[in-house]
Amino acid sequence: MHLGIARSVESASGPVPPPRLVVASDAGLLDLATAAELDLRANGAEPARAAELARLSFPPSLTALLAGGQRALDETRRLVASAPAAAFRPAESMQLMCPVDPPGFRDFMIFDEHVRNTYAPSGKEPPAVLYELPAYYKASTATLIGPDATVPWPSYAASLDYELEFAVVISRAGVDLTPDVALDHVLGVTVLNDFSAREMQFAEMRSRLGPAKGKDFATAVGPWVTTLDEIDIHSLELSAAVNGTEVARGSSAGALWPIEEAIAWASAGEPLRPGDLIGSGTLGGGSGLETDRRLATGDIVEMSITGVGSLRNVVGSRTDAGWQPGRRFADTATRG
Amino acid sequence: MHLGIARSVESASGPVPPPRLVVASDAGLLDLATAAELDLRANGAEPARAAELARLSFPPSLTALLAGGQRALDETRRLVASAPAAAFRPAESMQLMCPVDPPGFRDFMIFDEHVRNTYAPSGKEPPAVLYELPAYYKASTATLIGPDATVPWPSYAASLDYELEFAVVISRAGVDLTPDVALDHVLGVTVLNDFSAREMQFAEMRSRLGPAKGKDFATAVGPWVTTLDEIDIHSLELSAAVNGTEVARGSSAGALWPIEEAIAWASAGEPLRPGDLIGSGTLGGGSGLETDRRLATGDIVEMSITGVGSLRNVVGSRTDAGWQPGRRFADTATRG
Repeated sequence: MHLGIARSVESASGPVPPPRLVVASDAGLLDLATAAELDLRANGAEPARAAELARLSFPPSLTALLAGGQRALDETRRLVASAPAAAFRPAESMQLMCPVDPPGFRDFMIFDEHVRNTYAPSGKEPPAVLYELPAYYKASTATLIGPDATVPWPSYAASLDYELEFAVVISRAGVDLTPDVALDHVLGVTVLNDFSAREMQFAEMRSRLGPAKGKDFATAVGPWVTTLDEIDIHSLELSAAVNGTEVARGSSAGALWPIEEAIAWASAGEPLRPGDLIGSGTLGGGSGLETDRRLATGDIVEMSITGVGSLRNVVGSRTDAGWQPGRRFADTATRG
Repeated sequence: MHLGIARSVESASGPVPPPRLVVASDAGLLDLATAAELDLRANGAEPARAAELARLSFPPSLTALLAGGQRALDETRRLVASAPAAAFRPAESMQLMCPVDPPGFRDFMIFDEHVRNTYAPSGKEPPAVLYELPAYYKASTATLIGPDATVPWPSYAASLDYELEFAVVISRAGVDLTPDVALDHVLGVTVLNDFSAREMQFAEMRSRLGPAKGKDFATAVGPWVTTLDEIDIHSLELSAAVNGTEVARGSSAGALWPIEEAIAWASAGEPLRPGDLIGSGTLGGGSGLETDRRLATGDIVEMSITGVGSLRNVVGSRTDAGWQPGRRFADTATRG
């Protein structure tokens, strides 16, 4: 299955249409709440009650669906297999949105080539800890954007860059997982573009507290979460293009840290939650940082994974909104 | 108001009682859903409908309450002022739980004395960026614990430490806030103990991606979120004790970065969400790291803020559960 969130583009001048949980198919986009409603009515439910139950069972939230456990996924697959034509909508009648609404989001660095590339200009060796455990930073869940969304350019960002990644969505809770069972907790794979403001990111990382403003203005995710049965997570083919020109290509097969080990480590001593998003980190050569490119307003960035789909975004204009902190001189500060 | 979450301790052998949103008062704990139900019934509502509406309006989630906007807070204050005796419960009949369920959690370093203390042993100056912007790390929302909860000791943690902090809860959404309006977006203050596994934390921080496993096994929060009208956020008196012996004391007045500037910077280029938790970072001298103490199983750690309350936790036993990653040698890894 290719699961996503979409909203109708029919009524551009009216109120904003509500988002819907959808499944992509050759017949168009299957609106799951509509499919469930029709299924209930075909089995004798009163119309108002059918609509209410369908809305509760298939809200526009992948995390809410997954919180329903295996029954909710089984019911989803049953509807996909049995839905009548009236539950499908033409793909062009809907705008895809970000397919995930994760309670937590970690972004790893499983590809050593990216690590080597980013440290090479400084002449320094990467820190040893990157070879002792699968390291990650905790990313923001508040600024995820979907297909075709414009990338906001915050006032503090001197430049913008892209990062080509894949990500997995956690299907069910788990703690202290071992790598051999980690994929049993994964729903599927999506495309991830971790937009970055490099100057801010590198300044922040000197604090050793991790990137924050350098990353948290926008992360693009989509177009689908493709279930594991549809793809081979160990040989995903990823590529990136800017304004139609390919700028990166590679495979998930080249990871220093297998994704199972990243997931297992994410669950060490703390629970993974249904809907959690786990990014792979950048593929070797998958950022402008590594290839001496920066993005400009109006640039179209497209990231693709074969068998999952393409995620296209347009770079917006830099805003001038926003307060900036003033430098402190510690010696003159009041002490507690 | 002192807002919290509590569950009944009456039926230890039966099913786990559901959590309730409560307000502390001299008359005991006001159960807001019960108060709303009684209020509706006193005004002619059918009993079943009164119970249903009260449950929807006052779910056991501070974030859900705040998502209801100003009307929800006004209604809360109206109930606190008018509730009948039947809506109050003796404080000893309920166990307090973690009062917050934040969509996001940032932890700052607003106190320079803590920064200086932690860098002093190395002989190195703190990184300049800590004086250029109010730095923070993104903390986990998955492992928050409440009053009297046992602190889990994960298998990978060679030692455990405490951190004395205050935290604010965001009441309403905002982006690109300026410091002068930041407190208009704050509901109130709570006590925060950012438990830390130092050896893991310092190893991870060498990755520059920020602390992760070194922090994310447990953060204690509570007992209340005390609204800003009850306290002076700029002169909070904080203290910490281990096994009854005071180990730290100080005031929020000594911050290098005023909390308003931390909140404003948190909102730069990304939205704050209702219920978001923002920690101050450790008060100068507020950790065992600074005073050469480590915690032991069975230790009782108590953090207090005058006018807010005391947050007491017991250190648990180290578990042996959990997979550990094996060291990689980059040169022999398969490259993509």
